Amino acid sequence: MRRIPKIFSLLTLLLVVATVQGQERTLAERLGYPRDAKLIIVHADDLGMAHSVNLASTKAFSTGLVTSGSIMVPCPWLPEIAAYARANPQADLGLHLTLTSEWTQFRWGPVAPKDRVASLLDPNGYFRLTESEAAEKADPKEVELEIRAQIERAKALGIVPTHLDSHMGTLYQNKALFEVFLRVAREYKLPVRVATSWFTRADFVPEVVKPDDVFIDRVLDINPSVAPQDWATFYSDALRKLEPGVTEIVIHLAYDDAEMRGATSDHPAWGAAWRQRDFDFFTSEAFRKVLQENNIKLITWRDIGKLIGK
Amino acid sequence: MRRIPKIFSLLTLLLVVATVQGQERTLAERLGYPRDAKLIIVHADDLGMAHSVNLASTKAFSTGLVTSGSIMVPCPWLPEIAAYARANPQADLGLHLTLTSEWTQFRWGPVAPKDRVASLLDPNGYFRLTESEAAEKADPKEVELEIRAQIERAKALGIVPTHLDSHMGTLYQNKALFEVFLRVAREYKLPVRVATSWFTRADFVPEVVKPDDVFIDRVLDINPSVAPQDWATFYSDALRKLEPGVTEIVIHLAYDDAEMRGATSDHPAWGAAWRQRDFDFFTSEAFRKVLQENNIKLITWRDIGKLIGK
Repeated sequence: MRRIPKIFSLLTLLLVVATVQGQERTLAERLGYPRDAKLIIVHADDLGMAHSVNLASTKAFSTGLVTSGSIMVPCPWLPEIAAYARANPQADLGLHLTLTSEWTQFRWGPVAPKDRVASLLDPNGYFRLTESEAAEKADPKEVELEIRAQIERAKALGIVPTHLDSHMGTLYQNKALFEVFLRVAREYKLPVRVATSWFTRADFVPEVVKPDDVFIDRVLDINPSVAPQDWATFYSDALRKLEPGVTEIVIHLAYDDAEMRGATSDHPAWGAAWRQRDFDFFTSEAFRKVLQENNIKLITWRDIGKLIGK
Repeated sequence: MRRIPKIFSLLTLLLVVATVQGQERTLAERLGYPRDAKLIIVHADDLGMAHSVNLASTKAFSTGLVTSGSIMVPCPWLPEIAAYARANPQADLGLHLTLTSEWTQFRWGPVAPKDRVASLLDPNGYFRLTESEAAEKADPKEVELEIRAQIERAKALGIVPTHLDSHMGTLYQNKALFEVFLRVAREYKLPVRVATSWFTRADFVPEVVKPDDVFIDRVLDINPSVAPQDWATFYSDALRKLEPGVTEIVIHLAYDDAEMRGATSDHPAWGAAWRQRDFDFFTSEAFRKVLQENNIKLITWRDIGKLIGK
């Protein structure tokens, strides 16, 4: 019973890949760069989560080395980052659509009324701790209601999002959620964090994407197995080996301060020290030098968004 | 048209005062102390609001000089203080029932589903900024739904509240809200922050209180007009002049750190430096000495609660 859909999805995959490859121009070329250009979006996740995240991320934006970020609308420090967005309309800010609340001391819940998104919540009314549990239990209709509520609250606060992505990847966990994600993104004419390198990662990806969707080539993020002292080496090596095309480097910025240590005390991965290390590398002259030496250009989601519908 | 109710409320006031004064024993005596005993509850407000508040307040509890606190259930750091409450079941923790969200960079909304408490919310789904606007627009039925939801969430997280009070005094703003407050408190058999010294402050207070309710004698808090360098002098003088009976000293504890400065940046009154000054005085040897020299005893809301229904 699964064979016919499998064959169809293989055909769809081939068609999409053929369409992408058969286009006269690569994404880099469509953006006005040569075919072999190395283009990166340096993207800070989790804006709005904590004051420390907002402070470190906006400081990093001011260096020009971190180009983009995405905002968690359900989080308590949203108004602070919304004020930044209103004061900096050129900033490349998207929404980090949020369906999980992963820390244990410090939590948040939905933007939509709780009784209309009950499948997204734990018994205390917070989002669930993990993306796998969130995806397994979420009713896709309630997910759609909630992510639309997040987009509308952001817009009401004066944020004009340039892109959408998904906190902890919850919206990439299964076909039904991924369909909701892409449908809502298409309706708002916003690009999403989806890479063509992911097309073979899950059966459902080629079943859901459409030839008109615009996807970047790949996403790069650091692995929890990298030792703290190897942080700069990991990123520098990855940049030296970077392939042509559009790569998003997903990073997590904050200061290693009391607030952040309190929030992340039980999560060394993506914790306060981790975020400080990301801040230190991506605001450093060493990073600027690696970009120059390897002829890597910084672009933004705003650039990608201009291709939507074209 | 207002005269007849006025006369009734005057009569009720006289009846309540007469009842209180006519009792054989004062509150101090009912608590097992001499009639002229000077008893204080040193009470930290706003627990759960921020990590800095939780850290400073629990540190202050560990000195034994700050006896009590109350928790803001809608706030993001509730789980951290709930974990403290579970680990310290002897702690004197109540609920700081919350219907306002007064900072502009950092906000929170209701525990009840948003669409069932719409009268409590601003257009972005947060509680309103001020207690006067909150009280003016709040439907008392929705207030009751929300404060019951706050109590039930606290209990679900393992908090066994010893008392109730009202963040920014919203529930004392008018008769309808005050009635809701006392009705819910009576149902849960919890004492409330109401002082007999307030009985003449608003017409509706004597109309709502009942002879079986247990009230403390007075509440003391610092005034925003006190200069920072006069903080210790203000409190020390107030303690030296303290009248007999039960006084609650309402304080606000936090560290003057990045998180707290970020949260309170547009509110010098009750801001980060204010809270650090409260922390510094109420955890000091100077405070301990004033208590000893003036024979002032520390008591808790747990002590008061034992009188409910007796």
